[in-house]
Amino acid sequence: MDGNTNRNWVLARRPEGDDFESALEFHLHGNIPTPADGQVLVKALYLSMDAGTRMWMGPRTDGYQPPVPVGTPMAGMMIGEVVESRHKDFAIGDRLRTFGHWADYSLASEQSGLFQKLPVEDDIDLPAYLAMGGPNGWTAYAGIVDVGKAKKGETVVVSAAAGATGSLAGQVARNLGCRVIGLTSREDKCRWLTEELGFDHAINYRQQNLSHELNVLCPGGVDVYFDNVGGAVLDTIMGHMAMYARIAICGLVSQYADTEKKPGPSNFDQLLMKRATVQGFFSPDFFSQCGEIEKTLMDWHRAGKFTYNVELVDGLENTLKAYHRLFDGSNMGKVMVRV
Amino acid sequence: MDGNTNRNWVLARRPEGDDFESALEFHLHGNIPTPADGQVLVKALYLSMDAGTRMWMGPRTDGYQPPVPVGTPMAGMMIGEVVESRHKDFAIGDRLRTFGHWADYSLASEQSGLFQKLPVEDDIDLPAYLAMGGPNGWTAYAGIVDVGKAKKGETVVVSAAAGATGSLAGQVARNLGCRVIGLTSREDKCRWLTEELGFDHAINYRQQNLSHELNVLCPGGVDVYFDNVGGAVLDTIMGHMAMYARIAICGLVSQYADTEKKPGPSNFDQLLMKRATVQGFFSPDFFSQCGEIEKTLMDWHRAGKFTYNVELVDGLENTLKAYHRLFDGSNMGKVMVRV
Repeated sequence: MDGNTNRNWVLARRPEGDDFESALEFHLHGNIPTPADGQVLVKALYLSMDAGTRMWMGPRTDGYQPPVPVGTPMAGMMIGEVVESRHKDFAIGDRLRTFGHWADYSLASEQSGLFQKLPVEDDIDLPAYLAMGGPNGWTAYAGIVDVGKAKKGETVVVSAAAGATGSLAGQVARNLGCRVIGLTSREDKCRWLTEELGFDHAINYRQQNLSHELNVLCPGGVDVYFDNVGGAVLDTIMGHMAMYARIAICGLVSQYADTEKKPGPSNFDQLLMKRATVQGFFSPDFFSQCGEIEKTLMDWHRAGKFTYNVELVDGLENTLKAYHRLFDGSNMGKVMVRV
Repeated sequence: MDGNTNRNWVLARRPEGDDFESALEFHLHGNIPTPADGQVLVKALYLSMDAGTRMWMGPRTDGYQPPVPVGTPMAGMMIGEVVESRHKDFAIGDRLRTFGHWADYSLASEQSGLFQKLPVEDDIDLPAYLAMGGPNGWTAYAGIVDVGKAKKGETVVVSAAAGATGSLAGQVARNLGCRVIGLTSREDKCRWLTEELGFDHAINYRQQNLSHELNVLCPGGVDVYFDNVGGAVLDTIMGHMAMYARIAICGLVSQYADTEKKPGPSNFDQLLMKRATVQGFFSPDFFSQCGEIEKTLMDWHRAGKFTYNVELVDGLENTLKAYHRLFDGSNMGKVMVRV
C-alpha cells in the first residue's frame, strides 16, 4: 500500500463451496474513490469477517441481501477512519463502524446500511466495537432476549458457540440466569466456553453424540435454541425441544453455499407437538434498540460479566486466510483483518 | 341401541393409512359405565369428527396427546346429555361439550380435558357448539389473531379452507379486514368459500398450480398462513412468504399417518431470509380466552358475519363413514355423527 492506490478484493466469479481463492481476486492498483455530497472516504482499519457474507457471494436472489455483482469489490463491515469528508457530522480522523468494501478505501454514507461514529476517547478497545458491540452483539442480545424470550432458569442451547455471535449469545443468556449449553467442534473451544465464558456445559458435536448428550444434559428439553448453523444440528435440537420452546435463527451457515434447495428438518412436526416457535431474525430489524443493547453489553463488560476474543489477521492481502477461519471451524470468537 | 347396552368403537389395532375399518371394531354389547364421585354419565348426541384424532390412533408417543391404548374405546369430542350425575354442578338433562368415547355412553369429569355445560335455552343450534364454537372456533380465532397476528389489509392464506377449522379461520381473518385466500381441493368447495363465506379467492390446489396462483394473487407475498396440512403445500407457501410472515400451524393432517420421519420443508431457510415465524399451537393453550372467543364468534354469527356448515351422518354405526370424510377431501365444514 503506497497511499495512492486502493488495493481491493474483487468478486471475479461466484465461489463453489469454500474455494474463495478462485472466486476473489486481489487488485493492487485500484483507484481511490472521491466522496460525493453526504459521503465520507473511509480508510479501513479493521475488516469484520462474517459468515453471512458468504451468501452475498452466491447467486441467490432470495437472501436477505442481494448478491454482490460479479466484477465489483466484495462488501463487508469494518471499522475505519475518515480521511475525507463531505458529510456534515464527520470530520477527518473520526472513527466509524460502517459497511464498505474489502479494500483500503471505501465510500460510506447513511445509505451504507451501517454508518455509526465511534466514541473518540474510550476505555473500550477499538476492535471491541465489532467483536462485542456492533451487529454481532446486537444479534446475540436480540436473539436471546427478544426472539428467544429466554427467562431465568431456562435451558438455552447455542450453536457455533465459539463463534463471534454464539460466544456473545451464550454470555447474554448466562447473564439472564439461564443454564447455557454451547455446541462447538473442538475440545479447546469447549474449554474456552466453560472455563472463560461461563457456559454451564459444552458439547463437541463432531466427537460426541449430540442427541445422547442432550438427553443427559437436558432431560426436560431445550427451552431456547440460538441457531447459527441450521442443517442436521438444528434437526437434532428440534427433536429435543421442551414444550413452548423458541428457536431463534440468526444464521444457517451450513446452507449458505447451497445452490439447490435441501430438505428441511425432519423434526419439523415437533413444532406442532411441542407448540414451539421458530423465528428467523436479522439484527438490523432491531436497529432502534441497538444503542441501548450496546450500552448493556459494554456495562456488562466493564463489570467483568461479558468478554470477547478477537483473532486478528494482519494485512488486507491475507483477507481470505481470515475468511476461511469462519468455515473451517478454527476460529474462536471474532475474526478480523487489520488492514 | 336398546338403552341397556353401550355400543362403542374399540381401537383393536393401529391403522395403516386410512384403513380404519381394519383398525376399529364396533362392539354392540358394551357395558354402561357407572360414574364415580365427581363424574357424570353422558349419553352422546353428536360426536365430533376431528382429523387430529388420527394421531392418537397411531403409535407415536411424541404427539400432543398419548396414543389411545389398543383394545380400548376410541376417544373424541362430543355434545351429550347427562343421564346420571355425581358432579355437583351437573343435573340429569344438562347438555355439555366434553371429551368422551365413540360410544353411546361415556363418563366425563373435569379430568376429561374438555367438560363444559352448554346453555339451556339458546338461539344457537346445538351442533353449532362444535361446528362454530368449541375447539374448532377457538383454534380458528387464536390461530389468526394470537398466533398469526393478522392485521387489517394483510394477505392471509388458509389451507384445508373448506374444513371445519379452516372455514372458520378464513372468516375470522375476513372479519378483521384481511384479504383471504382459501386452499381447497374441489370446485364446489372453492365456490362455497368465495360465494358463501366471503373469501376473496379460492385456489383448487389439486387442479391449479399453487405456486403460479400465489404469484398472481399475492405478488407481495403471504403475510399470514394458517396451516392445517403441512407437507408440500406448506413448503410451497414458505416459498411465497412476505417479509415478517407468520405461519400458524394448527395441524399437519398430511403427516398424521406417518410412522417415519419425513424431510421438512425445503424452503425452511426462507424463515431466515424473510425474518418469518412458524409457530405450532393447540387450542387448549388458549383455554383461558375461550369464553371470550366463543362470545365474539357467536356475536358475529348473530350479526350475519360468521357462518358454518355441518355434515351430519346418522347413527353411531356409521362413524367410520363420517370419519373418512376428513381424509378423502369430501367434507365441507364440520362432520359430526348424530348418535
